[in-house]
Amino acid sequence: MNKIVDKIKWDANGLVPVIAQNYRTGSVLMLAWMNKEALELTLEKEQAVYWSRSRSKLWHKGEASGHIQEVKEIRLDCDNDVILLKVRQVGDIACHTGCKRCFYKKYENGAWVRDEKPLKKPAEIYRTRANG
Amino acid sequence: MNKIVDKIKWDANGLVPVIAQNYRTGSVLMLAWMNKEALELTLEKEQAVYWSRSRSKLWHKGEASGHIQEVKEIRLDCDNDVILLKVRQVGDIACHTGCKRCFYKKYENGAWVRDEKPLKKPAEIYRTRANG
Repeated sequence: MNKIVDKIKWDANGLVPVIAQNYRTGSVLMLAWMNKEALELTLEKEQAVYWSRSRSKLWHKGEASGHIQEVKEIRLDCDNDVILLKVRQVGDIACHTGCKRCFYKKYENGAWVRDEKPLKKPAEIYRTRANG
Repeated sequence: MNKIVDKIKWDANGLVPVIAQNYRTGSVLMLAWMNKEALELTLEKEQAVYWSRSRSKLWHKGEASGHIQEVKEIRLDCDNDVILLKVRQVGDIACHTGCKRCFYKKYENGAWVRDEKPLKKPAEIYRTRANG
């Protein structure tokens, strides 16, 4: 475990960016962050655990929504400072807005245009499980 | 142009992470960073221009190697703080090591294992053009 974690070049805040990609379709779902503990937990659980910068706490992705990310493959880049996770996205919704992925806006003729609709409303997602 | 750039939530250093993805295969090639000027130049040239954090300068990807990234699509995430570029990778090599992508190491049984070979050696890549 240690040699995996020690290889990572953590940033000044002790974090690395992590790209989550649908392992079947190749769709890029989201970018989040991990600290050492989050990476260790991800390896242990084989489910994505991030560090929430806004809440300053570990974030077991899907803990509130049920939209867990089962980790199929973990890759590291040339500089050892970016992680790529290939995941099975439970519920097919990665984004807290209810979209399949966070990248639902596209640059078009000088504007950011939403071209994907949510599969569910956030209110529907976050009331479906007892733990939040 | 301004409304595109103003929508972005730049970090404390005035940067956003940018994921570059092969527009045909879906392969995630690399993660780099942009500041406002880099994004403006990317939109103008329709080629990826990043901000090099190690060199503290604008980096027109491929300027030295010829491995330019032609931008096919630009997407923005829900929080407006991550950009996804779908690109045609000229030369089919995105990484300075000569690999197709930067993510050539895979987690396997407690180690990071290289499972992709460079298509070219770095010395071959960087002597092929007069400008470096």
